[in-house]
Amino acid sequence: MNPESVKNSQNISPAIRVGVLGFGGLGQAAAKVLAGKREMILVAVADQKGFAYAAEGLDIKECIATYQSQGSVGYLEPVGTLTNNSIQDLIDTQQPVDGYFLALPNLPNDFIPSVAKQFIAAAWQGVLVDAIKRTSAVEQLLGMKEELQAAGITYMTGCGATPGLLTAAAALAAQSYAEIHKVEITFGVGIANWEAYRATVREDIGHMPGYSVEAARAMSDAEVEALLDKTNGVLTLENMEHADDIMLEVAGIVGRDRVTVGGVVDTRNPKKPLSTNVKVTGRTFEGKISTHTFTLGDETSMAANVCGPAFGYLKAGQQLHQRSIYGIFTAAEIMPQFVK
Amino acid sequence: MNPESVKNSQNISPAIRVGVLGFGGLGQAAAKVLAGKREMILVAVADQKGFAYAAEGLDIKECIATYQSQGSVGYLEPVGTLTNNSIQDLIDTQQPVDGYFLALPNLPNDFIPSVAKQFIAAAWQGVLVDAIKRTSAVEQLLGMKEELQAAGITYMTGCGATPGLLTAAAALAAQSYAEIHKVEITFGVGIANWEAYRATVREDIGHMPGYSVEAARAMSDAEVEALLDKTNGVLTLENMEHADDIMLEVAGIVGRDRVTVGGVVDTRNPKKPLSTNVKVTGRTFEGKISTHTFTLGDETSMAANVCGPAFGYLKAGQQLHQRSIYGIFTAAEIMPQFVK
Repeated sequence: MNPESVKNSQNISPAIRVGVLGFGGLGQAAAKVLAGKREMILVAVADQKGFAYAAEGLDIKECIATYQSQGSVGYLEPVGTLTNNSIQDLIDTQQPVDGYFLALPNLPNDFIPSVAKQFIAAAWQGVLVDAIKRTSAVEQLLGMKEELQAAGITYMTGCGATPGLLTAAAALAAQSYAEIHKVEITFGVGIANWEAYRATVREDIGHMPGYSVEAARAMSDAEVEALLDKTNGVLTLENMEHADDIMLEVAGIVGRDRVTVGGVVDTRNPKKPLSTNVKVTGRTFEGKISTHTFTLGDETSMAANVCGPAFGYLKAGQQLHQRSIYGIFTAAEIMPQFVK
Repeated sequence: MNPESVKNSQNISPAIRVGVLGFGGLGQAAAKVLAGKREMILVAVADQKGFAYAAEGLDIKECIATYQSQGSVGYLEPVGTLTNNSIQDLIDTQQPVDGYFLALPNLPNDFIPSVAKQFIAAAWQGVLVDAIKRTSAVEQLLGMKEELQAAGITYMTGCGATPGLLTAAAALAAQSYAEIHKVEITFGVGIANWEAYRATVREDIGHMPGYSVEAARAMSDAEVEALLDKTNGVLTLENMEHADDIMLEVAGIVGRDRVTVGGVVDTRNPKKPLSTNVKVTGRTFEGKISTHTFTLGDETSMAANVCGPAFGYLKAGQQLHQRSIYGIFTAAEIMPQFVK
């Protein structure tokens, strides 16, 4: 009995066949999260230099070991293919994949939208999920609504931690209020070693005063290292361009100018410098001003708070897709479904 | 220009026509919440002795004043009707109502399911929302899934505060974890005057050690008063039969035995004796044990935390209904939609 048929015998529905695009820190964490799930199997992975596909499920440990030792899952025998056009070539295999998690860095800003366009152009149908950060990127994707709808794609955007889990918590908290005054997201991230999350740390630097995402992207590892030395490894981020704002605006909850995102990232300590939280302040129908707070446990990593929700939204997206509900949805509109 | 056409000119969709069944503390609060909404209008109210219906929207202040002075909205001229069979007679008018909020006390335990059956028998189609508390009542309703589906009704159950807002927050918080160990809901309620929430306080007493819901229901006001005198107005409730447990189980998040609900109700003080919160403890994919916490602002009343979410779920239910998605859904599965 192969792993998939074992899974299938335990569930009424067959396991959801998942692909992960991007295999840096986030993509590898996503694969590890999937290793513990019965309801999903990882069938496809693509990185910059290749891809791997296995209908019965990839060996996740092997994928990670091969990527780390050789630089690409394309070296995996016999399931890997080396190519500089990995996402396109993976799509072109036309192997069945129910949904993809786009664990891709979004530099340049239109990279993830351009990947979505590749799926549309290939007439692929299924669920796409991103954990994109920036407002302008989500805005571009929201503009593709009709295209995605016509293509039969259910696209779930902003489905990581922030935006994602915390945006959804804000949307939920808003229900108690007649009017929302402000939504404040403050995150604390502790990572033992910034090199495991190079792309994410560069995105964070891109949000610091005096930097741009392009400038951060162009920084060498040594330059990043030098910057971190000056700040003792701590990055303090304020008024970040995070898509939580547009997502809450589109959901009709609050104008984007009332949503702020900031945080403190310690790149040299796995302990979080503060507890990640979202505060929603509003006025109740009786005229009382109050604040609901959703706080993440300090022991939960960025990887857990991003990848868990992302797959929860992928499962929710799959349910929408099965009902022929296509287009684009944000984490603030849909309840993620727990993946066992 | 009548109020409805004003509303319609401000929105692409017409206002959702809402009925409120039950006009005690909760029903009246629901009406007050609706008074501040553009996207919904209150067109129908039923209490034990009558009902009122107005296609262009009821005058909410007048409804409350009439109920409080004369004991029924049925006395309202010319929109009221006096009847001892108010819910059935309201349904039988066949006036267009998009969704009903069942702001009804659920004693006996099958009362709300029996109301749902009346809607099914009348071939009514639309959205029904309850803020029911007990597991056994939600269980009965979940058993009516096929019946509701066949009838073209979208029924949203457990959509108050707990179950409801806090259950949804637990479902959301669960996303960070590979496995959920426990969900603990602890509520604090402060009400200045228990007499405004007679039915709710009796339900709470029904959950205290040594009492049953039937016994609590049979208590006279003087007996409730005497009990409250003994406890200085404070009711401490543990291991309550709250449907949060079955809702989280049905959503595939955690077995019902891992969900506990308890709280402290001060019936003589509007200040909450503790901040209402839900704690979700689990294990992440990396093996870390942690706890996410969602805490409600102390200034938010039970009425705000129940009625706001209930209408948020009604709006979400309306969107499902428009897509011909019928049956029964719990607050843990669907994201409530903010009502402006």
